[in-house]
Amino acid sequence: MDGAVLIGVDWGTSNLRVLRIGEGGAILDARSDPRGAGGLVPEAFPAVLAEVADGWLDSAPPILVCGMAGARGRWREVAYLPTPATLVDLADALASPADRPELKIVPGLKAMAGGRMIDVMRGEETQVMGLDLEPGNHRIVAPGTHSKWIAARPGQVVGYRTFMTGELFAAIRKGTILGTGMGEPGVDESAFADGVDRALTDPALTSALFSVRVETLADRLHPDGAADYLSGLLIGAEIAAHSHDTHGPVTLVGADALNARYATALKIAGFSDVRLADGAAAVACGLWRIHQASLR
Amino acid sequence: MDGAVLIGVDWGTSNLRVLRIGEGGAILDARSDPRGAGGLVPEAFPAVLAEVADGWLDSAPPILVCGMAGARGRWREVAYLPTPATLVDLADALASPADRPELKIVPGLKAMAGGRMIDVMRGEETQVMGLDLEPGNHRIVAPGTHSKWIAARPGQVVGYRTFMTGELFAAIRKGTILGTGMGEPGVDESAFADGVDRALTDPALTSALFSVRVETLADRLHPDGAADYLSGLLIGAEIAAHSHDTHGPVTLVGADALNARYATALKIAGFSDVRLADGAAAVACGLWRIHQASLR
Repeated sequence: MDGAVLIGVDWGTSNLRVLRIGEGGAILDARSDPRGAGGLVPEAFPAVLAEVADGWLDSAPPILVCGMAGARGRWREVAYLPTPATLVDLADALASPADRPELKIVPGLKAMAGGRMIDVMRGEETQVMGLDLEPGNHRIVAPGTHSKWIAARPGQVVGYRTFMTGELFAAIRKGTILGTGMGEPGVDESAFADGVDRALTDPALTSALFSVRVETLADRLHPDGAADYLSGLLIGAEIAAHSHDTHGPVTLVGADALNARYATALKIAGFSDVRLADGAAAVACGLWRIHQASLR
Repeated sequence: MDGAVLIGVDWGTSNLRVLRIGEGGAILDARSDPRGAGGLVPEAFPAVLAEVADGWLDSAPPILVCGMAGARGRWREVAYLPTPATLVDLADALASPADRPELKIVPGLKAMAGGRMIDVMRGEETQVMGLDLEPGNHRIVAPGTHSKWIAARPGQVVGYRTFMTGELFAAIRKGTILGTGMGEPGVDESAFADGVDRALTDPALTSALFSVRVETLADRLHPDGAADYLSGLLIGAEIAAHSHDTHGPVTLVGADALNARYATALKIAGFSDVRLADGAAAVACGLWRIHQASLR
């Protein structure tokens, strides 16, 4: 196993990542596959994992899975734990599919208010556990399809809120007039900043979105920058919900390009202490720490 | 012509309606066709109109067209007039395709602020002109794909703002996880009201949208009502941008079912004077009045 102590699995809705994890949570090797949990029936999971992890399971290493494999109707439903939840809470609630007792799945977390479940996550709780946070209160932002703003302390998720930023970007681009002729984001920083500004100052998002069209018709927005402007509008709308409190650390835990876009937008909004963390490394380290805690 | 004095054409992005219009703006007969202006090159318009209006054009009646036929790249671009704009302003700016001098197209309107174009409409200006408004200030809401909130006086559009409510509903339903298993709206009034309430009290729409999923997972929202809840969220978000001022008349000018949904949502938001007008009748009467004004 070349020093691997754990096989980690991050089974998202639309993507699967299998990791060979060494001491301390380091990623020794990684493989990706498009067979996300969202498209699999329960019986399909073992074969997909065996295929993607080909050769890595021969020595019967411990396997820890986070993400949507534990959702209802997927490999094995693992009930959401309520927030606040600690590393030990997660480790104590690991559960195995009936046919795979050596494999454990990390539970998701349900955010609670007034005794009611008000939000759900599966996967980001593991990322938070993999971060090296100094003592005190933190805000963690896991950007993506369903962005999460997470109130955290070291080893603890206090609460969180989901924003459908990435999925709305894709749906608006594909399914509305705004997407006509729209390219990819990442080419026009000025258009991105304009979109962020607009969202920070205009609370009526469903109207502000139409400005993608108006600004283009008015020749104030070049079609090549329209995707960046739209991205700025949606990321800006997410940040606007938090822009009443720009103090204290905000840690971005995503892929590099997405982290950079959010960092730019957070700075436009006046956030003073923006930190970057690698999302993939955080998942691996979180899986390793949860595994370690489960061995106590 | 059986009393028809005008052939009216309402050429929307995704739908075409041709009307035989009598004295006073009454609809004598109407035909619809799915060949909206959004999918036609300029050269295609004459033949489509001739086919749909088959027989109605034999006596060479006057023809007045509103909507997207006048947009850039369509039949003949007719420049937007700035708001405020009156019935006479529209009548004075009618323009014909080069090959059809007997046919006139109504210009759209551009909303202005600080000398800048901040919004665009094509078609709703004609609806407003077809309403019988008592003297004074009115708010007209034209619900639909791109809902318009229009400040108006009799025979005048003062200003307006677009909300992408209908198009976002379709794109979210088709292109996101929220649409999985979602049926049609119009079956669960309680879920619709819950969505409106949520949008009126939660300004973070991109997060509130995720509640479609959370409420379903928590068994507080039946999947059969999810489309109504989503509709309530989006209509509620549109109304929330205006809910600081619930006094004065608000006139809905759309199809009956959509008018009814908006009326319900406006009442939830505390609007005290909600009136209903038939959108199709308003287009016909508006075309007739603009035509009459053009004959002065």
